[in-house]
Amino acid sequence: MTNKSIKIFAPATVANVACGFDIFGFALDNPGDELSVTLNNSSNVKITKISGDSGRLPLDPQKNTAGVSVLKFLEHLKSKQGLDIELHKKMPLGSGLGSSAASSVGSLFAVNALLGHPLSPLELLPFAMEGERVACGTAHADNVAPGLLGGFVLIRSYSPLDVIQVPCALNLYCTILHPDIEIRTETARKILKPNITMQQHVVQTGNATGLILGLTQGDADLIHKCLQDVIAEPIRSTLIPGFQGIKEAALHAGALGCSISGSGPSLFALSLTNTDAEKIGEAMSRTCQENNLNSHLYISKMNFEGPRVLS
Amino acid sequence: MTNKSIKIFAPATVANVACGFDIFGFALDNPGDELSVTLNNSSNVKITKISGDSGRLPLDPQKNTAGVSVLKFLEHLKSKQGLDIELHKKMPLGSGLGSSAASSVGSLFAVNALLGHPLSPLELLPFAMEGERVACGTAHADNVAPGLLGGFVLIRSYSPLDVIQVPCALNLYCTILHPDIEIRTETARKILKPNITMQQHVVQTGNATGLILGLTQGDADLIHKCLQDVIAEPIRSTLIPGFQGIKEAALHAGALGCSISGSGPSLFALSLTNTDAEKIGEAMSRTCQENNLNSHLYISKMNFEGPRVLS
Repeated sequence: MTNKSIKIFAPATVANVACGFDIFGFALDNPGDELSVTLNNSSNVKITKISGDSGRLPLDPQKNTAGVSVLKFLEHLKSKQGLDIELHKKMPLGSGLGSSAASSVGSLFAVNALLGHPLSPLELLPFAMEGERVACGTAHADNVAPGLLGGFVLIRSYSPLDVIQVPCALNLYCTILHPDIEIRTETARKILKPNITMQQHVVQTGNATGLILGLTQGDADLIHKCLQDVIAEPIRSTLIPGFQGIKEAALHAGALGCSISGSGPSLFALSLTNTDAEKIGEAMSRTCQENNLNSHLYISKMNFEGPRVLS
Repeated sequence: MTNKSIKIFAPATVANVACGFDIFGFALDNPGDELSVTLNNSSNVKITKISGDSGRLPLDPQKNTAGVSVLKFLEHLKSKQGLDIELHKKMPLGSGLGSSAASSVGSLFAVNALLGHPLSPLELLPFAMEGERVACGTAHADNVAPGLLGGFVLIRSYSPLDVIQVPCALNLYCTILHPDIEIRTETARKILKPNITMQQHVVQTGNATGLILGLTQGDADLIHKCLQDVIAEPIRSTLIPGFQGIKEAALHAGALGCSISGSGPSLFALSLTNTDAEKIGEAMSRTCQENNLNSHLYISKMNFEGPRVLS
């Protein structure tokens, strides 16, 4: 038992999805983190190795999201089981792709599997949210929920927590462009205004409800019309040099929609085929380069399974 | 041709539906208006008779919603056809049940039928909205759209106008309690605040998107959880004496949800059977009476056809 070990993949996630501020998110197949977790003979949770973070993440499990989530989980189980966690960051930090969420989700998924699945993915959610609280100051669920459950997720309510996987009638592909700048989630939250107009609310809710209808009914035209954000994007896009041009390039290349992934700086664009996703990616990259900004591109279908066991 | 005549029923409608301010509405089978329209030999649109309004509605077609909508429609068609309209109000005015909308919708539906259906119900919508502009100062669509199309309707966007009938996987029944007071739509709009908090927006959008999911997936429990309004109801309910008690009585009697119909003063409650709808109605009536307020009750299933020809 003591040397029992597991290696898993935990997906990057796109939160907000244009019209669903704090309530929508979906999971990707690429990029994502890899984590190896091994049960040890002590009662200590240790982060033994972190790669891919340029030395920026803390090894102290009380300060690392992967550690915090697992400590809360073990506390809930009243378990004294010790573990060694190896965290291989395979996505950029502070990119708007749910990097901290992937680490929380991955460690919880791995430990839950090693302990014989005492909890369901949904039941792991509150512990993953505690990781988010450490990472960015608020226990938001729009990265960790799709990360754990896979697919397109609606966080219907935070109090009480109510999370629903939205049945999607289409296979959607996602292009992610990560411009070579960093935006802290905290900063991106602070620049938003505490109030919005009723008019903004009506427009945004029309699109959010329309997007759910488009996804469940498999209506690509409706999805296209609804992928608009009149609340966060107009403010946050000012933090991303050349945003409008990159977005327009994506739409011109056939994207169903394009907006900021989470709090940015990454942009996501949705499309119906892998070929479209690649074509859109080329157009976005080129435009970004024209703004003298380097970027990294990821192409992925929507991930409907959540984390998965690698070995 | 000249004596060609039609008699039709036009449904009352419930707008907002708790979490969908300005974007949700559904049609009822009861109550509703009856209209008789006859082609005449002149080029004049005349309102020849109005009953059930206690003499309050104008006979001048330029000032009556039924007249305004039809005049706009005929102008669009470049038609000089004259008509006589008889309007039989079979629902209370200023009740929050879309009384003005029913008159607009009914007259348009009748004239369109008499002229051989030059336009589809959806194409009639802009003319019905002009009627709403005359009746309450804003060309809102959340009564006229479900009135014309039937069923549960999402007004995804006002600019450009985009209206979608939401496919409902459940037969829903509606209890309407109309307390014996009157609230003008204009007044009920004015007391709303022009701004809301981001927190209100997130909660309301979670419920609005959840309601769409509940309706399309036939998930009564989800519908129940989503029928909440944190924006308009807390303010508008202050205009309705005993509102909280009546709402609680409806929920206690098994309603999926209960809120203000449109801008009030009517309350609607949704349920899964006619028996439940009646039981809920009794509980609401009784509570209203305990507040020394008379009320009128309507029980109806959701109307999925819109207006219908009576003879």
